[in-house]
Amino acid sequence: MSVQRELNPTARYLMGPGPSDVHPRVLKAMATPLIGHLDPQFIEIMDGVMDMLRRLFRTKNQLTFAVSATGSAGMETCFVNLLEPGDEALVCVNGVFGNRMCDIVERCGAKVIRVDAPWGEPIDPVNVKRALRGSRPKLVAIVHAETSTGVHQPLEEISKITHEKGALFLVDTVTSLGGIDVRVDDWGIDVVYSGTQKCISAPPGLSPVSFSPRAVALMDKRKTKVQSWYLDLSMVRKYWSGAKRVYHHTAPISMIYALYEALRLILEEGLERRFERHRRNHELLRDGLEEMGFEFIPAPEYRLPMLNAVKIPSGLDDTQVRSRLLNEYNIEIGGGLGDFAGKAWRIGLMGYSSTENHVNMLLAALRRMK
Amino acid sequence: MSVQRELNPTARYLMGPGPSDVHPRVLKAMATPLIGHLDPQFIEIMDGVMDMLRRLFRTKNQLTFAVSATGSAGMETCFVNLLEPGDEALVCVNGVFGNRMCDIVERCGAKVIRVDAPWGEPIDPVNVKRALRGSRPKLVAIVHAETSTGVHQPLEEISKITHEKGALFLVDTVTSLGGIDVRVDDWGIDVVYSGTQKCISAPPGLSPVSFSPRAVALMDKRKTKVQSWYLDLSMVRKYWSGAKRVYHHTAPISMIYALYEALRLILEEGLERRFERHRRNHELLRDGLEEMGFEFIPAPEYRLPMLNAVKIPSGLDDTQVRSRLLNEYNIEIGGGLGDFAGKAWRIGLMGYSSTENHVNMLLAALRRMK
Repeated sequence: MSVQRELNPTARYLMGPGPSDVHPRVLKAMATPLIGHLDPQFIEIMDGVMDMLRRLFRTKNQLTFAVSATGSAGMETCFVNLLEPGDEALVCVNGVFGNRMCDIVERCGAKVIRVDAPWGEPIDPVNVKRALRGSRPKLVAIVHAETSTGVHQPLEEISKITHEKGALFLVDTVTSLGGIDVRVDDWGIDVVYSGTQKCISAPPGLSPVSFSPRAVALMDKRKTKVQSWYLDLSMVRKYWSGAKRVYHHTAPISMIYALYEALRLILEEGLERRFERHRRNHELLRDGLEEMGFEFIPAPEYRLPMLNAVKIPSGLDDTQVRSRLLNEYNIEIGGGLGDFAGKAWRIGLMGYSSTENHVNMLLAALRRMK
Repeated sequence: MSVQRELNPTARYLMGPGPSDVHPRVLKAMATPLIGHLDPQFIEIMDGVMDMLRRLFRTKNQLTFAVSATGSAGMETCFVNLLEPGDEALVCVNGVFGNRMCDIVERCGAKVIRVDAPWGEPIDPVNVKRALRGSRPKLVAIVHAETSTGVHQPLEEISKITHEKGALFLVDTVTSLGGIDVRVDDWGIDVVYSGTQKCISAPPGLSPVSFSPRAVALMDKRKTKVQSWYLDLSMVRKYWSGAKRVYHHTAPISMIYALYEALRLILEEGLERRFERHRRNHELLRDGLEEMGFEFIPAPEYRLPMLNAVKIPSGLDDTQVRSRLLNEYNIEIGGGLGDFAGKAWRIGLMGYSSTENHVNMLLAALRRMK
C-alpha cells in the first residue's frame, strides 16, 4: 500500500495571530516518551502545571488548570459550565471573538445582552453600565486582547461595574496571557480562559482556565447538567484536583508536557521582563511600519504589543504580499478576519516570536515589496 | 521566582488501557517545528491525514478527519451533530463507554432506549431487534471494543437490523481501530469515532471520525444549531475539507503531525500484518496468564487482542501489584473501571506496545509476584 510522503514542512517564522514559534526546549518536551494519565509522576506534572498557571494568571484560584482542547473549547467550557437555559449574559462585542461568545451563549439556551463597539475600538464602560441598568445578567463577558482587531481592552472599570450588579466577570485572555499583564485576582476576574499557542508559545491544543471561588460556588448550584460531557467541570475537576484523581477522559499527555516546559520558560524569564520584551519589540515594529506609511487600526493607547493590526496600504495586494512573505521569506503574517478580511494584516509578536530579529526580518522583507 | 523542576518522567512500558507506547518516529514528529494552521503545507498534511484515515477505516467517506480533542470528545461530536432535542437513540450498554453514550444522548435532550448486556458479555442482536420493534430511533449506538471489559462486539448483524429500521449505525472504535479490522463501508457503519492513543499509538489528543453520506445528509437537515460550538461539524467541515479552507479554531498542529506519522507507520506495516501481530501477542499473553491461573473475563470468542481483561486472582492485591509493576518494573497495567474496580486488571497490547518483548516482560514480572 502506498503511503504518504515523509513529514517535512518548511521551517517558518510564525508572525501571524498564532500559533507562534515554539522554543526548542518545548519541542523537545513534546518528544518525551509518554507515561500514563494516572501515573503518580504525571499527577505531579499536572500539579506543576496548575501551580505555574496560577502564577501566570496571578491568582490563588484553586480551580486553575488546562482544558484538553484549544482556546475556543476553553471559551465554551467557561460558558457551558456557568450558564443554564433561561439565564442572561451580557457580552461585549468589538470583533470576531465577542461574536463567537454570543453564539456560544445562545447555544446554552441563554439570552444575550450585547454591548457593541466599532471594530478597532475598545468597549466603553459607560455602555456596559447603561446595559446593566435594565438587566440582571449572570455574567459579563469581554475579550482582553481582540485577536481580530488588535485592541487592548482595559478591564478594571468594567469589572467594578459588573460586581456592583452582582454578576460574574468573564474574560478572554487567549492572546494576552504571557504577553501583557493579566491580574486575575487584583482585577476581580471570576472566569478566565486562554490558549497555549499565542504568548505562551506552546503548540495549540490546550486552554488554560481559572475560576474564582464565587464562580465555582455558582457551578455547584446548577440545576441542570452541563450540556457538554467533555467539558463538564463537575467531572473534569475530580481528575485535575480531586483528593483521589478520578479518570474522566485521557489527558493529552504530550501537550501537557509542552505546556509544562513553556511555563517553566516563562517563569525563568520573569513576567515583568517578558511583558517588557513584548512592549519593546512592538515599538520597534510600529516605528518601522509607520516609517513605511502603514497605519495601525487601534488608537495608540489601545494597541496590543503582541498583535499588531494594520490597514493594508493601497498599492499592496493582500494575498500576493502574504504569499510572497511565506514563499520567499518563510514568514507567516495573518490576513484580516471577519469585517477586516482583505483590509487588514495582523502581525504577531508573540512569546518566542517576539524578538528584535523577527521584527528586523519582517521589516526588511516588507521594504522589498513596497 | 522559583520554577518547577525539569520535566523528567521515568520511562515506562505502557500496557494499560491507553495511552500505549509511542514509536520514536512519532515522538520525533511531535518535535517538528510548527507551521501555521492555514499554511498550504499544513493543508496538505491534513489532506494526507484524511487519506490515511480513510484507508484505516476502510471507507470512501469524504467526511473523515480528526476532531481536535481526545476520544471522548469524538464520541460527543458524533452524538451532538446527529441528535436534536426530542430525538430517540438506541444505545447498547455492556460497560463504561456505553453508559457514557447514554449520558451524552441525554445531554442532547434526546431520549435513550437502552439495550443492556451483562458486563463482560457482548450485546445480543436479538435484544436490539426486540427493542427496535416498539421504537423508531434516529440511530443505534454500540461499542466495538469495550475498554472497560475487554469484549469484542460483532457488528454486522446489528448493523443489518439497524438499517432495516432506517436508523443510522454509530460505532465506538476507540480501542479497536488499528488493532483489529474496522470495515466502515462493508459493515454499514454510518458514524464512527476513535482515539489516537490506543492501537494507533500516537499521543492522546485527537479523535479520528468518519461519517457516511447518509449521516452527512441528516446533519444538513438539522433544524437546531449543534449545542457545542467547538464540535459543530457544519463549521469544522469547512476547515478540513471545504474548497476554500475556512478558519474555525486553531488546529492542534503538533498532534496532527504525530497522527500523520503514526498513520504512515500503520500503512507501512500493512493492516493485515498489524492485526495478525496483535492477535499473536494476545495469544502469547493469554497462554502465559492462563498457565499462571488467571481467568479472562470475556468468553474466548469475544476477547479483544489489544485489551485483555482478567479477574484479579485471589491472593494478589490489586493496588500493591500494580504499584510494584510500575515502581519496580516500570510497567503500567490498568485497574478495573466502574463495576470492575478492584476486581479486574486490564492489560493493553496496543499498537507499538503489542510486542513479544512486552508480553515476556510482563509475564516474568507477574511470576515474581505470585
